[in-house]
Amino acid sequence: MSRVWGGWGRDGTAVALRALLERRDWRRLAELVEPLPPADVASVFADVPEVDWVFLYKVLPVDHGAEVFSYLHQQQRERLFGELTPQEREALLARLPADDLAFFIARLDAPERARSMQLLDKRRRAHVRRLLRHAPGTAGRLMTTEVIRLRRDRTVGEARRLIRDMAGRAETVETLAVSAADGAFAGLVTLEVLALEGDDTTLAALAALPPATVSADASCEEAARLLKHYDMLVLPVLDDNGRLLGLITSDDALDVMEALTTRSFHHFGGVWPAVASVRMADSVAMARSRVGVLLGCGLIGLAGAGLLAVALPYLQAFVYSLFLLPVILAVAGNVAIQTAALHLRTPVPAGARAWFAGLRQELAITVALGATLLGVVVPAAFWLGGSGLALLAGILVPLCAAAGGLVGAGAPLLLRRLGLDPAFAGTPMLTTLADVLALGLFLLALVGMSALGVG
Amino acid sequence: MSRVWGGWGRDGTAVALRALLERRDWRRLAELVEPLPPADVASVFADVPEVDWVFLYKVLPVDHGAEVFSYLHQQQRERLFGELTPQEREALLARLPADDLAFFIARLDAPERARSMQLLDKRRRAHVRRLLRHAPGTAGRLMTTEVIRLRRDRTVGEARRLIRDMAGRAETVETLAVSAADGAFAGLVTLEVLALEGDDTTLAALAALPPATVSADASCEEAARLLKHYDMLVLPVLDDNGRLLGLITSDDALDVMEALTTRSFHHFGGVWPAVASVRMADSVAMARSRVGVLLGCGLIGLAGAGLLAVALPYLQAFVYSLFLLPVILAVAGNVAIQTAALHLRTPVPAGARAWFAGLRQELAITVALGATLLGVVVPAAFWLGGSGLALLAGILVPLCAAAGGLVGAGAPLLLRRLGLDPAFAGTPMLTTLADVLALGLFLLALVGMSALGVG
Repeated sequence: MSRVWGGWGRDGTAVALRALLERRDWRRLAELVEPLPPADVASVFADVPEVDWVFLYKVLPVDHGAEVFSYLHQQQRERLFGELTPQEREALLARLPADDLAFFIARLDAPERARSMQLLDKRRRAHVRRLLRHAPGTAGRLMTTEVIRLRRDRTVGEARRLIRDMAGRAETVETLAVSAADGAFAGLVTLEVLALEGDDTTLAALAALPPATVSADASCEEAARLLKHYDMLVLPVLDDNGRLLGLITSDDALDVMEALTTRSFHHFGGVWPAVASVRMADSVAMARSRVGVLLGCGLIGLAGAGLLAVALPYLQAFVYSLFLLPVILAVAGNVAIQTAALHLRTPVPAGARAWFAGLRQELAITVALGATLLGVVVPAAFWLGGSGLALLAGILVPLCAAAGGLVGAGAPLLLRRLGLDPAFAGTPMLTTLADVLALGLFLLALVGMSALGVG
Repeated sequence: MSRVWGGWGRDGTAVALRALLERRDWRRLAELVEPLPPADVASVFADVPEVDWVFLYKVLPVDHGAEVFSYLHQQQRERLFGELTPQEREALLARLPADDLAFFIARLDAPERARSMQLLDKRRRAHVRRLLRHAPGTAGRLMTTEVIRLRRDRTVGEARRLIRDMAGRAETVETLAVSAADGAFAGLVTLEVLALEGDDTTLAALAALPPATVSADASCEEAARLLKHYDMLVLPVLDDNGRLLGLITSDDALDVMEALTTRSFHHFGGVWPAVASVRMADSVAMARSRVGVLLGCGLIGLAGAGLLAVALPYLQAFVYSLFLLPVILAVAGNVAIQTAALHLRTPVPAGARAWFAGLRQELAITVALGATLLGVVVPAAFWLGGSGLALLAGILVPLCAAAGGLVGAGAPLLLRRLGLDPAFAGTPMLTTLADVLALGLFLLALVGMSALGVG
């Protein structure tokens, strides 16, 4: 039996907390919450009614409360913040890490943002203003500017003294930024390196240039991708003169990656725009982000209805052929989904030759899959509708599998080559396109068999 | 214009490298590769023919080569390793980080593994043996055991001296593990904390217990989840007596999370078992991981064919009703996908009441979506087949949307409550189930209308 120490019995704690909140038993609530890590207290918010959030927050000591606040979703933060007194707000804002603070304030509406800025001390207000100059979704908005900076002619001993003075104020104290005499960024020194050196070594001898840096208007996605690709702990953000503006830390990048993955899942599933927090979204917002794609699918479905209307005489002449429809639609649509899912997270090969080779491989695989299915479908078709239907099934199932493979591989590869998120070709669009293609093949086959006098 | 310094023009570099490899121009190849970060050199392997991998590796200095090797996929590593001489293998293995080494050797086949173990020095061989005692996919296999350990009565000055001696040997030098007199784990001290303290402070005063620890047989997923949930840099792995076995670092956990996300995408897309590396998989392996789900969908599709066969007389009496099929199948299947995508990455609410509330909300949203679509579908149905078809469309579209919502919300929520990956209810199964449900509703409506004498 594997064991986790710490962690917690989520359901159990949530139930106990809810009971104490309902009984308004603040003393025992405080005792229960006090030893829990901030991440766990934050998880509880999703499981208690919104009206109780403020009570849950108020039993926490103010430092613990600020840590919990950092783990909440933005919508939870805003609703909780709205319930606090000005004194409570000031105490909370003073304790938030600088980049969390800017992220939170940037998303408030204008009057609330102005009021919140007034609650900050001068240094933090200037800091937040600096970040807000950069557009949302950019590296400049995501970075932290509270970095320990030292000129490269300083020594390790001086650096150690400065770190001790700055402790608690600079968020990324694990890394020092080193600059040249003209202020240009000259590399990073980690505390690990610092710990191994004598007091007299200069930082110039220790500073290492990271494998990548970005400008402030680079996207968060790009920054996260670089941090992950190079396994970096921090990514420097530089201005046009090569001076350091701030650092993006890998845990901020991890949050960006998480949000992007969720967005990709939503797009892949035909929810567009993606929903930021499903638990917090209201029904109208959820419906709005789905109706566009569904309407598109409905319209493509109507095109299929048009195809059926054109082919009605042939259908009436060979009505048993209808039995094949559920099978070939299942095959075409689902091959398309499988293919798209495989290629969604695979880097696109460099060069057109490799690209076509990938497409050819997909087609070979999907035709082989279709042929494998024949062993089940052809006998069933023969039993339901005789040799004509069996022949139709034998032709259509591999063809429809190939059509699905073409749609599923072609669309994401094409989008990726165009530099777009391949998940934009979501499964609803892919399956509906593949289905209509399969329907077209079905009707073409019917017309062909009718012309040949088969069936 | 946003800029990235460093990073690299991937296509351009790959093309230049390929040209130099083809010309066998080792000197210029070495010059081109030498300044590239290891992560970038590793990326190139995917874009050059497999026969050239060994040449690309051999132009690298041995330390650089080992770093590049760490960034390769396991299948790339094995094929490259197979091309190296025993001397090259020994040099490479001696330079791999301890946990990478164990991961690589564990996946070799038995004779190759035995040969590779012989190339290790005594200390590293013992280390790999310790890790291999734990099952694949467990915390014990993922952890690094090269941790700096100190008793808690030692001082900061002693710790600093030990770190200097150990540098380069211990992988997680950023964190010290502190133990009690009886050897039990007593907390962690980060270098950051160490840097802020005078030489005489004892570690007992500084060691902090992390919010969670795990046993060696906990799953990698569980370990990764805890690291992410608590924003920890390292997660201690303890034995039954509370002694430290090793640490799991957050970058190893990140790799686990990445692999899990890809697996979820594959499962969600009906590829089961998931494919470890799409670029490296052969066609047979790719086809094998898809045929089971497709066969299941084909069988469900045959059930749909059976439904059609039963309802054939009604269909023949009202053949225009067929026009609705593409539309209601598009609606039901795609509503199911959208709903599943939304719930795939949302924590399940605690308690049955909240669970049913979520299901009710989904049903309300999907019926509303269906009703919205009526504005397009009903006029089209009236135009194609008169008032009977319009009535049928008005009844069926919202019903089929609800059926899709029920399948899409019910299946993942149910799987999650059972503690399974909700992506197991992949979109192929969901759409096919929703389609057959929609087909059933369609035929029921036909029978009903026929009984009432409408249409």
